[in-house]
Amino acid sequence: MNKYFLKKQDLIQSNIDKILNRVEDENNKVEIAVKDIIERVKKDGDAALISYTKEFDKVELSQLKVTDEEIEEAFKQTEPGFIRVLEEAKGNIIEFHKCQVQETWKKEFSSGVVLGQKVTPIPRVGLYVPGGKGGYPSTVLMDAIPAMVAGVDSIALITPPNSEGKVNSDILAAARVAGITEIYKVGGAQGIAALAYGTETIPAVNKIVGPGNIFVATAKKLVFGKVDIDMIAGPSEICIIANSSNNPVFIAADMLSQAEHDEMASSFLITTDESLADKVSLEVERQLELLPRKEIIKKSIQNNGKIFVVETLEDAIELSNIIAPEHLEIMVEEPFHYLDFIKNAGAIFLGEYTPEPVGDYFAGPNHTLPTSGTSKFSSPLGVYDFVKKSSIIFYEKKSLENIKDQVIQFAQREGFDAHGNTIKVRFEEN
Amino acid sequence: MNKYFLKKQDLIQSNIDKILNRVEDENNKVEIAVKDIIERVKKDGDAALISYTKEFDKVELSQLKVTDEEIEEAFKQTEPGFIRVLEEAKGNIIEFHKCQVQETWKKEFSSGVVLGQKVTPIPRVGLYVPGGKGGYPSTVLMDAIPAMVAGVDSIALITPPNSEGKVNSDILAAARVAGITEIYKVGGAQGIAALAYGTETIPAVNKIVGPGNIFVATAKKLVFGKVDIDMIAGPSEICIIANSSNNPVFIAADMLSQAEHDEMASSFLITTDESLADKVSLEVERQLELLPRKEIIKKSIQNNGKIFVVETLEDAIELSNIIAPEHLEIMVEEPFHYLDFIKNAGAIFLGEYTPEPVGDYFAGPNHTLPTSGTSKFSSPLGVYDFVKKSSIIFYEKKSLENIKDQVIQFAQREGFDAHGNTIKVRFEEN
Repeated sequence: MNKYFLKKQDLIQSNIDKILNRVEDENNKVEIAVKDIIERVKKDGDAALISYTKEFDKVELSQLKVTDEEIEEAFKQTEPGFIRVLEEAKGNIIEFHKCQVQETWKKEFSSGVVLGQKVTPIPRVGLYVPGGKGGYPSTVLMDAIPAMVAGVDSIALITPPNSEGKVNSDILAAARVAGITEIYKVGGAQGIAALAYGTETIPAVNKIVGPGNIFVATAKKLVFGKVDIDMIAGPSEICIIANSSNNPVFIAADMLSQAEHDEMASSFLITTDESLADKVSLEVERQLELLPRKEIIKKSIQNNGKIFVVETLEDAIELSNIIAPEHLEIMVEEPFHYLDFIKNAGAIFLGEYTPEPVGDYFAGPNHTLPTSGTSKFSSPLGVYDFVKKSSIIFYEKKSLENIKDQVIQFAQREGFDAHGNTIKVRFEEN
Repeated sequence: MNKYFLKKQDLIQSNIDKILNRVEDENNKVEIAVKDIIERVKKDGDAALISYTKEFDKVELSQLKVTDEEIEEAFKQTEPGFIRVLEEAKGNIIEFHKCQVQETWKKEFSSGVVLGQKVTPIPRVGLYVPGGKGGYPSTVLMDAIPAMVAGVDSIALITPPNSEGKVNSDILAAARVAGITEIYKVGGAQGIAALAYGTETIPAVNKIVGPGNIFVATAKKLVFGKVDIDMIAGPSEICIIANSSNNPVFIAADMLSQAEHDEMASSFLITTDESLADKVSLEVERQLELLPRKEIIKKSIQNNGKIFVVETLEDAIELSNIIAPEHLEIMVEEPFHYLDFIKNAGAIFLGEYTPEPVGDYFAGPNHTLPTSGTSKFSSPLGVYDFVKKSSIIFYEKKSLENIKDQVIQFAQREGFDAHGNTIKVRFEEN
């Protein structure tokens, strides 16, 4: 793994950007193709979905909607042990996300003036769950549960079918556990277009969430504005802050787990201890050989496995804030002390016994997190993504009278006489 | 004004969409032009900004940054009476937005398991304030104050210069009142590109907020992902729910105030009383003639002034929820009763003495609101737009041991053995 020795003065964004070399996922060809797909779905609806599914997923569907029988069958076929794990994970995810619920509030700010904010669920949302080779039941739970806790009335889930026209049974089982019943067999940009604009079978939604490949991400960006979207996700990342007190075996395992996602995934270690850096490098080489996905991991570690040796733990924190990683592990002793200084990270894992996969599947916080430095301005998926707010404003007559001159003056200043007039007519003699 | 009689069965989205005929602001030519502008700003930095400002704003600037002297001069030249109004508005806006502050939380969910969410300000944001003929000091306060209440460290404001190379003095005075000192004379798509990618003079930001014309809106959409943006704003709208108890003079004045924004603005009245509908129509004609911006208003009312006559107040609420207006006035008696049933609206003004302009300038809630039906999924600009969250996860060794089998099983199920391995290595004998 590449090793970088960084002094305090090296810790500036442009330096780090050069080392990380995060890819900007812009691709004009993809955008042109996706625009075409969206236009055709807008125009031809279901027929376009059937046709694209034949082209991309190699199957000719007679029906887009997954039947209740298909869901029940998948649920029954799944081992009871795994259903129990799904149920337990669901419980943890609900408990955590309940803490994010925001309530409507209003209060009297001055005599006769009531202000507040009303919180209501988004009426209808669409969840995207990637399909293809693997099935990701965890994504079903992580997308669906915050929407349900938020009180969203109407939830549609879409996922591409396999070449037999079936949806991965773990996805259906997880949907059944979460309580999602409206599921369509359609993926890719065509699926996103269907959710945004609606077809004969799939009613349009107000917001689309969930991860996907570059076609899905590009389609989400293009339909943004017509509907809301959660975020545009890039490759997965981990950043670990550790020192001589930490176990190189644990660190190596955690870096490898991130690297197995795909060849673009990134694994960073920041340490004050050069000898730890070397031990971790050796451990990575050793453990790697034992892992089934070693070919992917090798490329990922080669491209984006990096060790930063810094002079102090304060520098480590500063570097981590510049990186703004998706996942951050603070392994050092007294990790809660350092938590106070973390500014940018999707999820923060504290101590030696909180490996990142605990968060992927089970702990309760969401695993859909901002990547590629976007944790500077984005949050984990949460209940707040599935509600919206409305301002509440009430003035009694006397209270309006008290401030009428100020409002009229402000309006006139901006050249909006009719705005001022709304106040004037209310206090004119007949 | 066009009058529509709607029965309960007419209240479906597709019917209403046809009547409202809201424009989709997509324009391929604008997008191509804006992409070019963004690319050139990325490549040539300040030189591109200077050149575009010459082309679009008809002035050759020698310096992009507004000097402290320019700010002080504008402030001194402004009448003290208007400064006092700005100060008072600022106070109200701060008081309201303080109620939106969210705190970091963490708690022990089970023995040895601490979960939570850390709330931190976005490091650096850019505010766009439209310039041109008018100056909108209210926009400066409404954009800047939530960012400051959120604790954003670094705030840049951009606004186009006039043909003398100066920024509107009311904008500078409002910036001085708000406490904004980093201001640049650049507008349009080039300004948005500068904020997103940075130039020699303007350091890049993490999020861009504020209204603008179609070039600004298109540029915001294109840079979204690289930075966050607030929303893509369309033409302004008002929807008023009123019955026979309400004053047609007030209603007409409120509709006209919305119409004066521009020819695309919309003014809707929903009423159960046909005779009120007719009185409002006449009042609109009468008051219109007295207003300085009557040419704009006439076109706006002609295009987008609409009266809906419905059978019950419940139908009125339902129609309003389908419209999802930017501004909603509930004029009828006991407006708080109806508030409970409102699902989609940017801001809700209650009672006969809360005309919408009170919210534009003075009451405290934000005037940057979701338009064109996007209040189904978007919120007013707020403190929550200027912070982001990080999940907090901590497990003690014993607590991890309790759940290790579940996490390993889930990881294996998704084909991620290295994920499971992070748990295994922590409990293996040396």
